[in-house]
Amino acid sequence: MGNSYGTLFKISTFGESHGKALGVVIDGCPAGLDIDESFIQQELDRRKPGQSKITTQRSEDDIFEILSGVFEGKATGTPICLVIHNKDQKSKDYSHIADKYRPSHADYTYDVKYGIRDYRGGGRSSARETAARVAAGAIAKSFLATKGIKISAYVSQVGDIIAPDYPSLDLSQTESNIVRCPDEQAANQMIELIDSIRKNRDTIGGIVSCVATGVPAGLGEPVFDKLHAELGKAMLSINAVKGFEYGSGFEGVKMKGSEHNDAFYQEEDKVKTKTNYSGGIQGGISNGQDIYFKVAFKPVATIMQDQESIDSQGNPATVSGKGRHDPCVVPRAVPIVEAMAALVLADFYLINQTTKLRD
Amino acid sequence: MGNSYGTLFKISTFGESHGKALGVVIDGCPAGLDIDESFIQQELDRRKPGQSKITTQRSEDDIFEILSGVFEGKATGTPICLVIHNKDQKSKDYSHIADKYRPSHADYTYDVKYGIRDYRGGGRSSARETAARVAAGAIAKSFLATKGIKISAYVSQVGDIIAPDYPSLDLSQTESNIVRCPDEQAANQMIELIDSIRKNRDTIGGIVSCVATGVPAGLGEPVFDKLHAELGKAMLSINAVKGFEYGSGFEGVKMKGSEHNDAFYQEEDKVKTKTNYSGGIQGGISNGQDIYFKVAFKPVATIMQDQESIDSQGNPATVSGKGRHDPCVVPRAVPIVEAMAALVLADFYLINQTTKLRD
Amino acid sequence: MGNSYGTLFKISTFGESHGKALGVVIDGCPAGLDIDESFIQQELDRRKPGQSKITTQRSEDDIFEILSGVFEGKATGTPICLVIHNKDQKSKDYSHIADKYRPSHADYTYDVKYGIRDYRGGGRSSARETAARVAAGAIAKSFLATKGIKISAYVSQVGDIIAPDYPSLDLSQTESNIVRCPDEQAANQMIELIDSIRKNRDTIGGIVSCVATGVPAGLGEPVFDKLHAELGKAMLSINAVKGFEYGSGFEGVKMKGSEHNDAFYQEEDKVKTKTNYSGGIQGGISNGQDIYFKVAFKPVATIMQDQESIDSQGNPATVSGKGRHDPCVVPRAVPIVEAMAALVLADFYLINQTTKLRD
Amino acid sequence: MGNSYGTLFKISTFGESHGKALGVVIDGCPAGLDIDESFIQQELDRRKPGQSKITTQRSEDDIFEILSGVFEGKATGTPICLVIHNKDQKSKDYSHIADKYRPSHADYTYDVKYGIRDYRGGGRSSARETAARVAAGAIAKSFLATKGIKISAYVSQVGDIIAPDYPSLDLSQTESNIVRCPDEQAANQMIELIDSIRKNRDTIGGIVSCVATGVPAGLGEPVFDKLHAELGKAMLSINAVKGFEYGSGFEGVKMKGSEHNDAFYQEEDKVKTKTNYSGGIQGGISNGQDIYFKVAFKPVATIMQDQESIDSQGNPATVSGKGRHDPCVVPRAVPIVEAMAALVLADFYLINQTTKLRD
Repeated sequence: MGNSYGTLFKISTFGESHGKALGVVIDGCPAGLDIDESFIQQELDRRKPGQSKITTQRSEDDIFEILSGVFEGKATGTPICLVIHNKDQKSKDYSHIADKYRPSHADYTYDVKYGIRDYRGGGRSSARETAARVAAGAIAKSFLATKGIKISAYVSQVGDIIAPDYPSLDLSQTESNIVRCPDEQAANQMIELIDSIRKNRDTIGGIVSCVATGVPAGLGEPVFDKLHAELGKAMLSINAVKGFEYGSGFEGVKMKGSEHNDAFYQEEDKVKTKTNYSGGIQGGISNGQDIYFKVAFKPVATIMQDQESIDSQGNPATVSGKGRHDPCVVPRAVPIVEAMAALVLADFYLINQTTKLRD
Repeated sequence: MGNSYGTLFKISTFGESHGKALGVVIDGCPAGLDIDESFIQQELDRRKPGQSKITTQRSEDDIFEILSGVFEGKATGTPICLVIHNKDQKSKDYSHIADKYRPSHADYTYDVKYGIRDYRGGGRSSARETAARVAAGAIAKSFLATKGIKISAYVSQVGDIIAPDYPSLDLSQTESNIVRCPDEQAANQMIELIDSIRKNRDTIGGIVSCVATGVPAGLGEPVFDKLHAELGKAMLSINAVKGFEYGSGFEGVKMKGSEHNDAFYQEEDKVKTKTNYSGGIQGGISNGQDIYFKVAFKPVATIMQDQESIDSQGNPATVSGKGRHDPCVVPRAVPIVEAMAALVLADFYLINQTTKLRD
Repeated sequence: MGNSYGTLFKISTFGESHGKALGVVIDGCPAGLDIDESFIQQELDRRKPGQSKITTQRSEDDIFEILSGVFEGKATGTPICLVIHNKDQKSKDYSHIADKYRPSHADYTYDVKYGIRDYRGGGRSSARETAARVAAGAIAKSFLATKGIKISAYVSQVGDIIAPDYPSLDLSQTESNIVRCPDEQAANQMIELIDSIRKNRDTIGGIVSCVATGVPAGLGEPVFDKLHAELGKAMLSINAVKGFEYGSGFEGVKMKGSEHNDAFYQEEDKVKTKTNYSGGIQGGISNGQDIYFKVAFKPVATIMQDQESIDSQGNPATVSGKGRHDPCVVPRAVPIVEAMAALVLADFYLINQTTKLRD
Repeated sequence: MGNSYGTLFKISTFGESHGKALGVVIDGCPAGLDIDESFIQQELDRRKPGQSKITTQRSEDDIFEILSGVFEGKATGTPICLVIHNKDQKSKDYSHIADKYRPSHADYTYDVKYGIRDYRGGGRSSARETAARVAAGAIAKSFLATKGIKISAYVSQVGDIIAPDYPSLDLSQTESNIVRCPDEQAANQMIELIDSIRKNRDTIGGIVSCVATGVPAGLGEPVFDKLHAELGKAMLSINAVKGFEYGSGFEGVKMKGSEHNDAFYQEEDKVKTKTNYSGGIQGGISNGQDIYFKVAFKPVATIMQDQESIDSQGNPATVSGKGRHDPCVVPRAVPIVEAMAALVLADFYLINQTTKLRD
């Protein structure tokens, strides 16, 4: 249970970190959409390990294969299955944790819930699963692009280093540095911090911010499937995420209504708001302004240090840090955040085509 | 679309603020559960307007009626329909906004999405809909109580007044004051602040925190329906919510992994963690520790002041504050947060009964 | 569980035979649709008891009330709740079966499944629940009418009396007699048979046939949610139904492919087939020809005779026929079959609006 | 849309007849279940082409591979992905029908619905997709076996040759002949008939009957997801199926209530019925008696004869029979019917674990 997402643009992911393959089945991609394999690969490459000195040094190439649903370069309306075969499966590396519960990992909870666990590399609980999401998200992005919708995520905070707020940033610069922060000065400080954290065999958290532009008014399905509620769920389902806020977010609680309300005005037949504390969403429905939100990531739980813990019999045990891991997850999380946002928006776009009586 | 929630313990709400009635259909409540009508009423009373000087002075008694699914005081396993008839329907009060878009309300987005809108009191977008959730949540709470699970929400922040953190609070004191903050000193400051905001015909935001105790390890359905992801969606679906975080939340991004990891230990056959930055959830599954999370509410959009806006033709229009509204939503939001948390946990509890092969 | 139907045009029914009320929540009715209350009532009247000498003589007027989702005569896109209050609740009539398992009823299975049962009049298992379906189906029919789709069911068999096949019938004559068979001669024989069965305190089965015209090619969602599979489920979910077939149905198994295949031809830009053994559905998708199918109803289980059975302790017990019941269910089942077909087609119509990339 | 089935034991299939691979993702298989790969292969072999002189002579070996969800021979509770790679992809064979609409196939309806179509071997509409169902069904069968539930389908009719009814048959004999009819005499006649049909380059229909034994009382979720309604949908979703009936079925319409009612009695603490016209299901819920139903299959649409049709421009065109096809589909349909029945029962078994309040 729980491995599917979406109503009309629906995905189901499968696969363990060190199993034969990861993959995703997309059911409901509109027929006729151009499927650009090089774009899918490009998105996977933004997420792949080993891409820079501040990510894990594991090298996985994450080459995908389309098994179904695409004919002569176009989606046929039938399920699209994408598979990423696992190559670097050094399973022996994981025997040392087969019976131990790593702190703040899912080892213990999976054991209790399922009574059995593929312990190799975290199994299903590994963030490696998000590669399947990125692949599916690339297709959702392609669909949204045909509607003029664009999603841009970036790193806005690492530890206590905070980039300026988005309206002042040039989001086209996000990919210009390895930390994926469009502000050069903040980016340099972030890279330096992550590098120093890595040298101390420790990890650090961060925030990914995301902006969606070109979203027409009308997306979102109150009262439960509000646009921001679904975005929130989608983001919180990403490994290591601890919080989600949109528009004014947690800071907004300190504001007065007279400050926080976004005044409407009309400009050339377009309804706009003077401020955007609403984050582009009112009553759970997009209002045509930019949608923006923030996603908080905790420090990676795997650290290169010895930690006290217990084994599955409840005996004390020491967990030793081994292998190659990310000192900070946010640079590689940027495409994952974009992918999940794209999946949510594509789904709501389709649902909204059925809301009103039409000819 | 979007008016149902849950998989096995499933609710569907209906009703507009000034229509004939609000209500909810619960499908999947385990047969045999005692349905305590006085407890449901008590929960509704915690949410009802007019309960104190810091809430709206509208008086609605929110008396409910059970139409189906209960026989001789017990749930029969068939759908339970609860209806709350609307009495105080002063529809004329709302003619002044029939054609205007109130700032930061859902008037504009509902108009665009549906092409038609019941403008009376906000119609379906009114927070009055949450009465149906509270009624359903009371039943979910009763179910959870049979499993030893208890949910306690409280007001932890109003404007910039912040109560101490939960482990140091006595949560049995939440109902001892009208703002529902268990810390007496903070409570008094909050009440004073809300009162002063109200006198200035303005509104203010706040935070509701929530703790769930007695939750067994194993609830939550990765990879998409993680426990905190579903809690996040449930909370974000409540009117005026702008953010959700659990465990260390947004503050956690500043921490190092070596500080943030929760060390396991065993005490009398029970697995515990020394700290609880995980907020009782690891890998999207409850780990047996207390679950805690925070929900950020923006300042109420309806203020008793004139505001510039536009009408549905795009012409400038002034929106005047009228009627009786809440200066701060959080005191009445406490039972709503608890209700949604109860619905999420009840659903996952049932799903988890099917996870493992059992005799 | 199991009380909702549909994906985008979704209904949830509630209510027991002798509870306070029956009802339905419709979520996803396209906003702007005219809601014609007199048409809904007219459909309910076609199903109501006491309408003729060959139905039960119980008199229930089945007056409905709309609680939500309709404003100024139009659907607003929010959930529509329709309630039918129960008036004729002579609960005392049912004390004699409180503890007995009536043969071929659901008393025993409900007791085993739920451990508790509202025994009054069959509770939730009563066909009275279908009133809620008919009300919802009337709205679905109104939606389909805006697309030129019309659904016509009729009685095609009672016992061994069989009406001629549909292409030779004038379906406008269905309502011209009380058994709802458009062939006058067969109708008279059917009425006579039912009357004689009733006098013998017995019951008899029958078949309802259904034709949908004006259905555009393209409806249905293979591979599981094929149009005929969903129609089949919808029909089989109606009380007393034992079988479903479409197009050539069970008779088709005797045919050769060379006889059974429907040859395509084109006439004035329209693709047609020379025969229609496919029943208007190919590969699970409508092909633009008339859709037709048959639904088999067993004889009503309640007979006015003493029957041997057991009570809930397993002791032998005699069940005596009491009250006023239908000697044959099919005349009143005609609007129910139409309602369920309308709900299925409305749902697929909406889904199909999202299948192809559109501008 | 439409490529998933089930609520808790949920499958999603993918793949085209001549694409790279077919497959299925199973989400919700109880953790700890033994996954017996040889049993899965054995089930696939019962469905595979080329298995006897009365099936298609195409030879496909249908070797499967498990990509995820199984660890050390057991289900882990995470999604199980099974893939069957296509080997015999002679795509050139199909160029002759790329632009033609084969009679009673899905070519035309897929073209209208999706605007694009993988025409090779019928693409997604090919019965080859059912291999994925058989693989998933094998796992569902293994789960049911742990509960003492057994499903046995067999061929009960080919053309007008009809086997005796099930209570008189020895179902252990089903696999003793190539037509899968447990009655030797009828089996021989069926084989002869199919052989003669094949020589005439034609095809013929048939019926598969199915019996489920050991099903506990309580499975099925009224009012919409009744056990027989879901079985009906599952069967009707199989290629070439035109009808479904259970218990007394269409013949039951001719019976009187006094004949048709199944009298209850108790035998050694077990509730039983003297007759079983109910087919083991009352009120949509299993009653502990044998469940039995029939599934009608039309004659295969592909015949080895020239047929008149049109092309995608609406011009007249001749479709010539080519390739190797089944003269009658029912012998190979037996494991498919069993697989779908197993999936339905496994799902309801799990749901039923959550119906009543339990300790």
